[in-house]
Amino acid sequence: MYDVAIIGSGPAGMTAAIYAKRAGLKTIIFEKAFVGGQMSYAHSIENFPGFQSISGFDLATNMKTQLEGVDAKSADVVGVDFSGDIKLLKTKTEEFSAKTVIIATGATSKRLGIQREAKFVGRGVSYCATCDGAFYKDKAVVVIGGGNTALEDCLYLANFCRSVTLVHRREEFRGDKSTLDKVRQNAKITIYTNKVVSDILGETVVEAVTLTDTVTQNTEKLAADGIFIAIGYTPKTAFLNGAVNLNENGEILTDHNLLTSVKGVYAAGDVRQKILKQVVTACSDGAVAVDQITKIL
Amino acid sequence: MYDVAIIGSGPAGMTAAIYAKRAGLKTIIFEKAFVGGQMSYAHSIENFPGFQSISGFDLATNMKTQLEGVDAKSADVVGVDFSGDIKLLKTKTEEFSAKTVIIATGATSKRLGIQREAKFVGRGVSYCATCDGAFYKDKAVVVIGGGNTALEDCLYLANFCRSVTLVHRREEFRGDKSTLDKVRQNAKITIYTNKVVSDILGETVVEAVTLTDTVTQNTEKLAADGIFIAIGYTPKTAFLNGAVNLNENGEILTDHNLLTSVKGVYAAGDVRQKILKQVVTACSDGAVAVDQITKIL
Repeated sequence: MYDVAIIGSGPAGMTAAIYAKRAGLKTIIFEKAFVGGQMSYAHSIENFPGFQSISGFDLATNMKTQLEGVDAKSADVVGVDFSGDIKLLKTKTEEFSAKTVIIATGATSKRLGIQREAKFVGRGVSYCATCDGAFYKDKAVVVIGGGNTALEDCLYLANFCRSVTLVHRREEFRGDKSTLDKVRQNAKITIYTNKVVSDILGETVVEAVTLTDTVTQNTEKLAADGIFIAIGYTPKTAFLNGAVNLNENGEILTDHNLLTSVKGVYAAGDVRQKILKQVVTACSDGAVAVDQITKIL
Repeated sequence: MYDVAIIGSGPAGMTAAIYAKRAGLKTIIFEKAFVGGQMSYAHSIENFPGFQSISGFDLATNMKTQLEGVDAKSADVVGVDFSGDIKLLKTKTEEFSAKTVIIATGATSKRLGIQREAKFVGRGVSYCATCDGAFYKDKAVVVIGGGNTALEDCLYLANFCRSVTLVHRREEFRGDKSTLDKVRQNAKITIYTNKVVSDILGETVVEAVTLTDTVTQNTEKLAADGIFIAIGYTPKTAFLNGAVNLNENGEILTDHNLLTSVKGVYAAGDVRQKILKQVVTACSDGAVAVDQITKIL
């Protein structure tokens, strides 16, 4: 029986494990084949305080060294039972029990699903303007999407990029009118509606995109140094099978103490509904969740 | 005219500056003679994700390198005027204007004010159980205070310390009854009321404390490896002179976006009312505040 079971070994889960270990809690963390989660794909992180520049892989490896003494299980949690005071977690072959649980499984950025998208990740294709935008100072970038994230990414990037082109497959935007108005009024931003990015061109790094008009099917080529894909996230919550309350996007709903709809079950990091999804805010969540657990155990 | 003025150069202020710089905002940060705030006094930080062990001074110095390109002013802000759309900040000799402000001045732990207290800071005297508790595994520790922080520190430390002695100068505790009940029921915790720690004894590190009974004035010696002083914080908000709303402890009140009672003025880190005051949660605040500012500018 564990005091706390942490599902996921990204920055939220690992920080939770660091705090749980130091609090003297009997702790298990469920990891993937390699630790770090989404972060581990980042070629260079320059906005995590304490490191001028570090790869996501190295930052994850550093955090992992701080988990010495914590039981780590390299297995997916495929089912849970949160109905009793004792929480049960099932992998394909084993079952584990714990007094409390922290869900820190993260989220996956949605892919466009076009050819060469994967090839250019970290070489001009990004899924996070706040993370990678600063690498595109005075460059021409394309933002893809129609929601608030895409609109806000445009405004953010227009602060320092040479030009920003917003590409949206529909006529209407889902984002807030006030944000859309700001985008429309910004001289640096050009808006293309009813168009999709159908191909990405370049030798080793992104050099241009192919735009296809969804109505006429006409194509055109647009030069671009960077492509920011902001078409949403998929939180990793399917394995929960409704055990805690989610919002319409599949994100876990928590109160400000990070408690889910089930007593003793907390959520931390990108898997939960929150304002800003960054490595440092995920880490903070991990610490806060454990602090709450030390108060209820 | 700055886009954002950041008051304070601890982890919250410096992370805000990192994010503001990367967002292309014209930024000024007001620093002390040396950066890092409270953190810089920490001999060894082992719960900040990414570093197995690092001194607070080194972590602060690392963060400072990430601020290249941000205007830094080594001066105290002694007065503010937040009444207009343009916010004014005054040092002793100059005045600065900014569209938005992040207050990240931190807080100072209250000192007991006894002889040798300062001498033993980092050598057995600590003001933060969550930060330093893990260094006292299987040791005998004393906790001083009568509020929730002192009670929670006792429970936290009892998870791994050999013994915990709670010393409170009054008969009654201010903390919650449910927490006090847990403290009373914990076999590892001994409670001394109507007593104060009047002296700290030891050669190079803490070895014992002198307890003085507040009623009889009798003294006794109690062996101890560590002393956790949990008698409160003083948030650095005096210079604001009522410009934003504070709680009864002088902490700045914010909404969940870290907005204070004044539009365009945010608070981040230990200076605000929040659940868990740690380096990593302060850093997270700095990132969140700037994210909000990029959305309103």
